[in-house]
Amino acid sequence: MTLTQGLADFVVRTSYQDLPQLTIREAKRCLFDWLGVALGASEHPIVDMLLDTAVELGSAPRATVLGRDAKVDLIWAALINGAMSHIHDYDDTHLDTVLHPSVSVIPAILALAEGEQIDGRTLITAIVLGYEVEARVALSVYPSHYDKGWHITGTAGTLGAAAASGKILGLDTQQLTYALGIASTQAAGMREMFGTMCKPFHAGKAAANGLLAALLAKKGFNSSQKALEAPRGFCHVQSDGPDLECLKRDLGSSYEILKNSFKPYPCGVVTHPGIDGVLKLRDTYSFTANDVTQICIRANRLVLELTGKIKPTSGLEGKFSIFHCAAVGLIDGVVGIAQFTDERVRDPEVVSIINRVKVEVDPLMNEDEAIVSMLLRDGRKVQTHVVHASGSRENPLSEDDLKKKFKLLVQGILSAEQIDLVVRLIKEIEEVKNVKLLVKACST
Amino acid sequence: MTLTQGLADFVVRTSYQDLPQLTIREAKRCLFDWLGVALGASEHPIVDMLLDTAVELGSAPRATVLGRDAKVDLIWAALINGAMSHIHDYDDTHLDTVLHPSVSVIPAILALAEGEQIDGRTLITAIVLGYEVEARVALSVYPSHYDKGWHITGTAGTLGAAAASGKILGLDTQQLTYALGIASTQAAGMREMFGTMCKPFHAGKAAANGLLAALLAKKGFNSSQKALEAPRGFCHVQSDGPDLECLKRDLGSSYEILKNSFKPYPCGVVTHPGIDGVLKLRDTYSFTANDVTQICIRANRLVLELTGKIKPTSGLEGKFSIFHCAAVGLIDGVVGIAQFTDERVRDPEVVSIINRVKVEVDPLMNEDEAIVSMLLRDGRKVQTHVVHASGSRENPLSEDDLKKKFKLLVQGILSAEQIDLVVRLIKEIEEVKNVKLLVKACST
Repeated sequence: MTLTQGLADFVVRTSYQDLPQLTIREAKRCLFDWLGVALGASEHPIVDMLLDTAVELGSAPRATVLGRDAKVDLIWAALINGAMSHIHDYDDTHLDTVLHPSVSVIPAILALAEGEQIDGRTLITAIVLGYEVEARVALSVYPSHYDKGWHITGTAGTLGAAAASGKILGLDTQQLTYALGIASTQAAGMREMFGTMCKPFHAGKAAANGLLAALLAKKGFNSSQKALEAPRGFCHVQSDGPDLECLKRDLGSSYEILKNSFKPYPCGVVTHPGIDGVLKLRDTYSFTANDVTQICIRANRLVLELTGKIKPTSGLEGKFSIFHCAAVGLIDGVVGIAQFTDERVRDPEVVSIINRVKVEVDPLMNEDEAIVSMLLRDGRKVQTHVVHASGSRENPLSEDDLKKKFKLLVQGILSAEQIDLVVRLIKEIEEVKNVKLLVKACST
Repeated sequence: MTLTQGLADFVVRTSYQDLPQLTIREAKRCLFDWLGVALGASEHPIVDMLLDTAVELGSAPRATVLGRDAKVDLIWAALINGAMSHIHDYDDTHLDTVLHPSVSVIPAILALAEGEQIDGRTLITAIVLGYEVEARVALSVYPSHYDKGWHITGTAGTLGAAAASGKILGLDTQQLTYALGIASTQAAGMREMFGTMCKPFHAGKAAANGLLAALLAKKGFNSSQKALEAPRGFCHVQSDGPDLECLKRDLGSSYEILKNSFKPYPCGVVTHPGIDGVLKLRDTYSFTANDVTQICIRANRLVLELTGKIKPTSGLEGKFSIFHCAAVGLIDGVVGIAQFTDERVRDPEVVSIINRVKVEVDPLMNEDEAIVSMLLRDGRKVQTHVVHASGSRENPLSEDDLKKKFKLLVQGILSAEQIDLVVRLIKEIEEVKNVKLLVKACST
């Protein structure tokens, strides 16, 4: 068996019963987090443009555009929902490769779930296996692939979407091998596009192209038996010196979905310990922003290197300003998408608080660590030490954190009843007979 | 202006009136040759699989699948017609880069031509400009891009399709710049897929992705201002040491479409001088295959290195066997798609003639040169010297050659009336008010 066949065979052979309990729990968390992140961006202009294009092309109304009163065909649904979920850079991250694994896999299989009846266990299995394939492909080419300029979520993500879709479609090993090949030869997306609409588009295309690969393979479309490892195959073409062992090492005994993480805030990850500290102090001492005369954040040097912008001029720049992040956290007590609009960045209250924020670099601090102190108008000085930021490997988001994030993201988009229904359906997903129920709960 | 903007601006600024007469003549030849090559493969199983998939997805019946009684949406039409036209490796070639320029550009804009009214001059202009962009992009990354394992028709072709589609859609310079970016970040296709169904699929995806890029750019979708030349843009990511000057050198004064060539036979290009010689002798002396006791082909060493297979076992292998090519040429008097079926390769008559073919390598011969001699049963020895094979740079196919190729390809697919109509419409394309007429003439 070639490495590509081995990976395909693993996907075909592995069933829900084979999955370690922890991977099932994690897949449910991934699904829940992804739904919130997608819904939270469902009203974005990027979604309008994609949806308008699909509608003008006459796309058949068969699968839901999340958070919208609109349906498109399965391929377009994968594309639009995939792009949607990557708009705010708020999606999950496979920490070892900076791959965002959900944004290609989940939209592809949710689109399929509207085409045929799929139960919750099948969905969970496809998520775990899709993540496994894309993360292993990502590991095999990382870091040279990313350094060269590839957007790994767009490239490796295509393989994940194909594997998960192929699992749902019940492909055999030969078909799934071909599906991985058809996916690999469509895999694309460049880092030059970061900061443009094409970044989320990569995620959508990865989902759509992976789904298409699986559909074609089911029809008998062929490709290579060794698309990943061949000298002119994916790994060698898209990286220098790939580590092909990653495609098979500990396959079935070690699961990459367990190395996944969720973002508590939709902004640069190095700002997270600082934000944690600000929110912690605000919660603990119940003051308002106006009570604070100075905020000092002591943190790793990367916080200034990557997010040192003192005067951001747009919402996007605000995501890369520790000053803005600290200010809106202090004022609002939450840091979500609403805190990163262009208007919010220009808000005089925010600007006035930004002027009270100081950042001190401490070479002894870890990247996920910060000490936040504040001087209050009444003379008190309060301080907290964030040892590991929320969402870091050592301090993953709790179920409650995820629920809070979800609710903040979907407010104004889903009704309270819908929110409760989604939460319940995810909780009991193993018993859900038809996943279409879940999609329905997320449509408007 | 960045290089990407410069290329976009050239496409936007250049109108039919600016085109040198020779480029118009060549674009008409490209269109005619492409139509025949596409129609000749329209009944292939690859087309069935793609069409079935589109239909099952509910694709809106708006644009013609050539040679079929079927319509699909614009994106799928570009995909299917593009793939169709690359199935037999019989399409045109930009000799300096081995790019096949027609198979992404023409299907994309013909699909658009069914969406809105486009006249012949607009179509010709879009072809010339689409070829120009893709060939320049190809030149800028060739050869390291191809050596690394990229299928240049799939990658650079995406840019050509976007440029041509953008021209048809009337994009402005900013929109076309973005369209080139959206195209570049989807560009994919690996040489590992040669010999599989994915090779023609690359051409189809290049057409579809390029068209999608232009449609999205028209909607306001953005990308990079320097997608081609940026450090993490297309040229650097997909090649080592690109020659970025190719993107602007002599733009507007030198046209790449003039460096294009057409294939007389659907098989390895090094077999072409030998086939020319066999057909010439057969025509000149009017013997049948049975009259010949020995055939000797003296040719460049590459003919044995690349096409030395004495006993091919499949139609595909037959394309890479000078022995099979010479034998079927001698028996049938033509070398078209029908000469490369699996059945034909196993035909006892063909096998018996193959046994009479001898190939002698002559280090003094050029790649496009051969001396073919035959011993006849009546004792005569006949010989011809092919100095430049047909389809080579020095001996391009004539209008008559192209017409013969077209007729052979479409027989059994188009009626005699349709063939006459297509020939006439292409001849008078400058005066055609609505290109839909041409597409209609190619549907069944």
